[in-house]
Amino acid sequence: MAPPLNSETSHTVRKTLEFVQHHRLAKGDRLPSERELSERFGVARSSVREALAVLDAMRITERRPKSGIYLRNAVEDGGLDALVLQADLGLTFDPQVTRDVTEARIICEEQALRLACQRRTDADLSKLHQTLQAYAATIQAGGDMAEADVEFHLAMVAAGQNRILVRTLTPLMLMSRRWRERYFESDAIRRRSLDDHRAFVAAIEARDEAAAATLVRRHVETAAADVRALAEQGGTATTNTT
Amino acid sequence: MAPPLNSETSHTVRKTLEFVQHHRLAKGDRLPSERELSERFGVARSSVREALAVLDAMRITERRPKSGIYLRNAVEDGGLDALVLQADLGLTFDPQVTRDVTEARIICEEQALRLACQRRTDADLSKLHQTLQAYAATIQAGGDMAEADVEFHLAMVAAGQNRILVRTLTPLMLMSRRWRERYFESDAIRRRSLDDHRAFVAAIEARDEAAAATLVRRHVETAAADVRALAEQGGTATTNTT
Repeated sequence: MAPPLNSETSHTVRKTLEFVQHHRLAKGDRLPSERELSERFGVARSSVREALAVLDAMRITERRPKSGIYLRNAVEDGGLDALVLQADLGLTFDPQVTRDVTEARIICEEQALRLACQRRTDADLSKLHQTLQAYAATIQAGGDMAEADVEFHLAMVAAGQNRILVRTLTPLMLMSRRWRERYFESDAIRRRSLDDHRAFVAAIEARDEAAAATLVRRHVETAAADVRALAEQGGTATTNTT
Repeated sequence: MAPPLNSETSHTVRKTLEFVQHHRLAKGDRLPSERELSERFGVARSSVREALAVLDAMRITERRPKSGIYLRNAVEDGGLDALVLQADLGLTFDPQVTRDVTEARIICEEQALRLACQRRTDADLSKLHQTLQAYAATIQAGGDMAEADVEFHLAMVAAGQNRILVRTLTPLMLMSRRWRERYFESDAIRRRSLDDHRAFVAAIEARDEAAAATLVRRHVETAAADVRALAEQGGTATTNTT
């Protein structure tokens, strides 16, 4: 999946976030003007305006008429969509963010799967079996596992009939795409993941909430531990760019 | 709190979302070009570009070079931040969205409060007592209850030491600001809410997870039922603009 913004806007969002972090700006601090940002980053004023519209919508910056551009929230306190944007821009995350994402993912996905066990329809089950087959086919064909994995997990969550939970889990899955691309390079991990996905579908089919809950906790915790190990092997901190 | 975008960009985001919904565009459908949107909405091309940058960042639209603007996800499948933006723009929500938000809020807030019972520090407790006092003072002074209510709930969730859960609950709280402004017009509701908030702090102080969990479920469900009743009295569907 391509980064969501055109390249100069992406570049300007990235530069602005780096500026905020480098200068340790806190909530309420003023940023340089549009003109100054444009000169500093060597980009058109229009790109600065587009980047600020994005950051405003994510509640990170705020433009006050006749006053200037202010930091509304630290980058760590903006919307979840800002995580996906940061990952797509190749920015790294603090290890604490990664731990919090894993914990939040387990909480939301466990509860969503409990709802899926209660509420799944026959149509949901067909969709899940299809998505499982597509997942196995992607492994066979050496295709994009990170993408197939997001699709499978979101299909399970969707069977819980709560679209807000789907919308909550989407950024938590998408922000770790780059990690997961490396993660799925291992044959053993691809096989284990397929087995887990089969077990998920069986638990939802049998409406076995306890099995689904145990499985999701183990599945996400194991993956997080493996990703941490990969990052350490790579000699870097746990980031999304390794 | 002011809408996060400048007025012409806000207007253009709103018009674009209305266009997508009015024409029942589905994932993968093409939107009119920037030039056509600018003429149709009577706004500058630069405002169209800023609006599209925002919608791209929320994963609703996608600009493909030399091809055009496409719908990447239905408005209902974008990021959670899009909910806050929709509410700020005065757009209405489907009743199903409102039900899903209530359910997701209970799930995330219950689990966050369980973590708060386990992990809260003395500093968290002081902060909670302060926020509770500020809440009582806002009632006395006839101040902005909707704002004070968001602050109190997010302070409780923050005591769970997981910032991703805070970032998940923020849009779910902010999107209902307008409902809650009307809701808090009632004296009885303000008093009941203060009692509940005191009980929350006592449960977190006593590390009583079961009490916190029961209380949050009842608190959010009661509020949702009251808001539905208000909306029906107003003779409208459950929207955020009543």
